[in-house]
Parts: sequence; structure tokens; C-alpha cells
Amino acid sequence: MSTKELGGAGLRGQSAGSTALCTVGKTGTGLTYRGYDIHDLANNAQFEEVAHLLLRGHLPTQQELDAYKTRLISLRGLPEEVKKALELLPRDAHPMDVMRTGCSVLGNIEQESDFSEQLNATERMLALFPAIICYWYRFSHDGVKIDTQDQSQNCIGGYFLKMLTDKDPSELHKQVMHCSLILYAEHEFNASTFAARVCASTLSDIHSCITAAIGTLRGPLHGGANEAAMDMIQDWQTPEEAESNIMRMLANKDKIMGFGHAIYRESDPRNALIKRWSKELSEQVGDKHLYAVSERVETVMKREKGLFCNADFFHASAYHFMDIPTKLFTPIFVMSRLTGWAAHVFEQRANNRIIRPSADYTGPDAQEWLPIDRR
Amino acid sequence: MSTKELGGAGLRGQSAGSTALCTVGKTGTGLTYRGYDIHDLANNAQFEEVAHLLLRGHLPTQQELDAYKTRLISLRGLPEEVKKALELLPRDAHPMDVMRTGCSVLGNIEQESDFSEQLNATERMLALFPAIICYWYRFSHDGVKIDTQDQSQNCIGGYFLKMLTDKDPSELHKQVMHCSLILYAEHEFNASTFAARVCASTLSDIHSCITAAIGTLRGPLHGGANEAAMDMIQDWQTPEEAESNIMRMLANKDKIMGFGHAIYRESDPRNALIKRWSKELSEQVGDKHLYAVSERVETVMKREKGLFCNADFFHASAYHFMDIPTKLFTPIFVMSRLTGWAAHVFEQRANNRIIRPSADYTGPDAQEWLPIDRR
Repeated sequence: MSTKELGGAGLRGQSAGSTALCTVGKTGTGLTYRGYDIHDLANNAQFEEVAHLLLRGHLPTQQELDAYKTRLISLRGLPEEVKKALELLPRDAHPMDVMRTGCSVLGNIEQESDFSEQLNATERMLALFPAIICYWYRFSHDGVKIDTQDQSQNCIGGYFLKMLTDKDPSELHKQVMHCSLILYAEHEFNASTFAARVCASTLSDIHSCITAAIGTLRGPLHGGANEAAMDMIQDWQTPEEAESNIMRMLANKDKIMGFGHAIYRESDPRNALIKRWSKELSEQVGDKHLYAVSERVETVMKREKGLFCNADFFHASAYHFMDIPTKLFTPIFVMSRLTGWAAHVFEQRANNRIIRPSADYTGPDAQEWLPIDRR
Repeated sequence: MSTKELGGAGLRGQSAGSTALCTVGKTGTGLTYRGYDIHDLANNAQFEEVAHLLLRGHLPTQQELDAYKTRLISLRGLPEEVKKALELLPRDAHPMDVMRTGCSVLGNIEQESDFSEQLNATERMLALFPAIICYWYRFSHDGVKIDTQDQSQNCIGGYFLKMLTDKDPSELHKQVMHCSLILYAEHEFNASTFAARVCASTLSDIHSCITAAIGTLRGPLHGGANEAAMDMIQDWQTPEEAESNIMRMLANKDKIMGFGHAIYRESDPRNALIKRWSKELSEQVGDKHLYAVSERVETVMKREKGLFCNADFFHASAYHFMDIPTKLFTPIFVMSRLTGWAAHVFEQRANNRIIRPSADYTGPDAQEWLPIDRR
């Protein structure tokens, strides 16, 4: 297959359906959830407001938000079977395999037997996903069986940090988590969301759809970019060291993660929103180099390649400043994007046709059958 | 969204990429795997020959086939962690949830850490999938922990029947299983295969791809048709009763499973191939009504709606005559289609671009942000 034909691959620019949930890059930049600009949401809302917007169709009133958060807190108890399954997974398992498996096991224990249960099943996952990753992480790494029914934290980000560290997170950390979870919540027909819709289009259950999406997000071309960015920048002690390394990597044509985007052409609107928090966290922890290194990488990539940071690049330093282990970065993405995935599943189900494209055949012509003793 | 627009939905007729593995309905009928006609394969080959063709690129010589079967037999031991996870899943779990979960757990225990391991990882699944479903089934239904390292059966279909019933299957049953597994092995860009390719396109691991495919096949518009056909026909005692029920269902515009196809226009070439075995099994077990009922349903559907049986319809009676519980029909599909899914994953990886289509936006225009106390 020639390179030219490959240019049309990946369904790039082809419409695969309709959505009322999101616009991406409508004017070369820009991101909206149900018509709301990402800047308004990320700067002002709590993540639970955005979850309510995506899953229930509108931004909640104060009363609705309070009730919603209370409801999510009440759903935090991890079923015994899920705990036992997580205990079987080794310390060196891939955390995204753990998320995928936790979700899949849950689907056996609390089956979505009818689509009328889709919202309940989704909100149960929304409440449980931080518990799934933290229960496995703490058990496999620290030998501790955590109590996932913590009620001290009334937001999902704070709950995750509490499960992970056993300490009450600061207001700043909770604010950063709201922003981060909002930025990752939804992004139109990205690969993991599209996988969820393909699965939904056979009228499969919600846990199958979300399991498919988690497995798809796991790939390094999709969800792994913030982890790869962290792995790259963590050893560089000064901006100068960062610059010389980036120049060398560019000369070697190495892939540099956290830059550019399949859809955005000028900038990723999510970058400035998380970068601001990375800077504030850097000051708060007394960081002497990681933020400066990150900024220098951004400058060099712009200067040398005209490439901008996407949502992932400053997420790396921001999460790192909050002491989150690098390998848990993508599972946080899952906790957030679950809202977008599920909203797309609801939308697919409401106006469904099975997603079954065609393919161009490039294989051999008719082959004559030969009995095995004549091959 | 109007019905007219929906006509273009589901990517029907749109090319989403290339494949050298399969043609479907090229002349309105017809099915080939790597250029070999499905009639030649289903009438002459063992399933392991077709697995070798799909996964390793050519039909094996006798020596290669012997070695391949020996190799697959050696891979039948289920890891302890997978067994323990399967023991956690309740008797009333959905068998496809069990398959999805077994595959996902396996991916934690035996991670595909590099694409060079893709063939090994796939052949391990090929050897283990019958064990996964049977271990769970026998444990949850009979309280028995089966030994999955059975060596008495040298073919996958026979191994499945042995695990399920604890009895050595007859030559006839093994022959039927070869045919059935060959018919279900591969079918171009069907929804589950396409889900596997979307997942693969982010460069995720093979267990994520197969997990996504299993979840997608689970939907009643895809893998569930032979089970639905069985549920429909099993209570009808005579062809006349079948005919009057079908006429009533057609009048009610009920969906009748096992008929018609998204791609085939005139007939499904797989139908005659499995129908022949259903007839032979019917005679062998002394069936007095199920085969006759099935034939009558076929006649009425053709006469009334011009619809033909697809691969699923006579699979229902064939499996039933072999005493396979109806709820295990779709897991057999998984054991077989794994070969096609994995071959597509290999193909996607060899010439990859992330599958990331666009969407038509049908949502609200720009929404003004209102602080929560003003909503």
C-alpha cells in the first residue's frame, strides 16, 4: 500500500456519525461541551457539574449539584468480587489493564440488564473508578486493603488523592483535579470514544462499551502521552539540558510526546488551562527546575517545529507536583473520559445503526484448494 | 435527525481501510479467506488449518499442522490467577462478560510487552478460550474445578466439547465443530473486528483489542443471533406451529433473528455449509421436529420476506443437537473469530494510522456560562 493511499486512512476528516456533545477545533482552536466553552467550564466549574452536563444534559443548580455529589459518595463501596479480582493482579500489571479488568469484572457483578439502567450503571462507574485503581495500587504496592467508602472527600478528584495517599488533599490540589478532569472529560470522535460507539452500535451493554474504550485509550498514540512526556522531562535538571536534548531528539527524528494534535491546527485550548495550574503548583512545592524545563521544551518545539503543547504536556508536571505516580496518569484520564464515553453510548443507542464499514481488498485472487498432502 | 440522514449512518458502504484477509459478498454472495473459498475450507479443512492460514499467512503442510496442533495443546494450562478470577463470577453472569473478563485478566498476567509477541499471545488465547468459558461454566454450574490441561483431544472444537461435558466427543461432533469454527473465523470489517482495529490503531496491546472485540460481539445485533434463533424455535413442536408463529411475528413486525445480512444480498454462503451438518445431526440424534421446524422457518421467511438464512440460523439447531447450552453459543463464536480479529490487529499494526473520524455536530450553539447561583 502506497504512502499516498495511507493519507486517506484512519477515517481522517470523514464523518462517522452525529453528536450533540462536543465541538473540537471548529475555528482551528476551540472546544465546547454541549455548547459551553472549555474555558468557562475549566475555570469555573467543578468536575461533577461537567459530569452532570454530559450525562444528564444540563448544568446543575446548586441543589442538583449537592444531591449529585451526595449520590456519587454513596456509590463508593467496591463489591467484594471486584476487590478480590483486583487482589489477583500483580504489582507490575499495566494500570490500564487493571482499569479495563476492574470495569469488566464489575459488569459481571452488576450487569446492565436493560438500557434504562444506563445512567445508574455509568454513575456507579464514575463513583468507583478511583477506588478500582487505588485499591489495586495500594494493595499491590503497599500491601494495604483500603476502605473505599471514604466520605471525607465530596469530589471525585479529592477522593482519588485521598485513596492514593491516605491524606486529606489541599484545596489547591482539589482545584487542579477539577480542572484536569474537566479538560479530559470529552473530545468528540477520538479513537476511544469511537470504539465505545462501535461497541454500542451492536446494542452491547455499557460495561463492554467502557471496557473497549479503556483498552483503546491505553495505546501510546492516545492516552499515554502525559506519561511519555513525564518520562522524557523528569531527568532534565535545567532548561539548557532540556533544550540540547530536544534538539538532539529532533535531529534523530524521535517522536516527542505531548505536542500537536490530529484535529487542532493552531493550538490546543486545554494547554493554557492546565499550564496555569502547573505553574502555581510549581511555586507551591518550591520546584526549581521541572516547570522551567517544561516551558523551555514548549518554546523549542514551537521555534523548531511550529508545534504547540496539547492537553497532555503540562499535565505531566502538574500531576507530578501533586506526587501522583507517573503510571497512574492515564487511569485519571479514564476517571474523567468515562463521562464523555458514556454520553456517546447513550447518544449512539438513541439513534442506532450498527457501525459496519467496508474495506478495500488488497489480498490474493482466488486460490485453488490443495489437499494437505499436495501442499 | 431525520431517517434519511440515518441511511448514511454506520459507515455502510464506506471504506475504512484495507485488508488482505477476506472478501465478503463480492458477487452478491461468496466469502473468501486469503483468497480461499469458504466452501473449500469448510468442507475440507480442520479449523487449525484455517487458524494457521489467517494468523500465519498460509495453509500448513501436514508437518506444520501436526506441529501447530501439538503447540496449541501445550498451551492449555489456565493460569491460577485467571482461574481464581473466573471463580468470582456468578452463575448468572453473561457468558460473554465472562469471556471478556477472562481475556482481560489474562492480559494482566501475561502481558504482550512488545508487538513481536503478538503471535504467541494470540495462539495462547486460541488455546485458552475454550478453557476460560468451560472453567467458569463448570465451576459456577456444577461446582467442579476442571483440569484444563486435557490432552485427549487434539482439536479446539473437540477440546471444548470435552471440557464442557467431560466425555470424549464423537467424530461427527468434532467434524461439525471444525466446520462451525471455520465459518465464524473471519468476516472482514464487521463491527467487532472494526472495534479491534480501532483499538489497535492507538497501538494498544492485543488483549485490549480482543477484549474490545468480545464486548462488541456481545451485542444482540452481532454475535447473539444464533442464541436468539434458538430461543425462538425451541418451543415449536411442528412445522405448522412454527409457520403460524412466524406469520404472527411478521404481522407484528417483530425482529426475527438469523435472517438477512448487512452485506450479502442474495444468500449467505455459510448457511448451506452448516445446514448440511444440522440435518446430519438431526438424523443422528433421532430429532423429530427441530430440524423440520428450522426448515419451515427458512421457507416461510423466503416466501414472505425474500430473506435468506445467515450463518447463525442453522447453527442454532446444530449446536443444540450437540447438547451445547444455548448461552454458550456466542462464546464459541469468540473461540473462532479470535483468529480473524487478531489477523486484523496484525494487519492494522503493520500499516497503522490512528482511526479518528469526524462527526457532524447537531448540538446547541454557543451557551453563555452562568454561575451556579444564577441557574
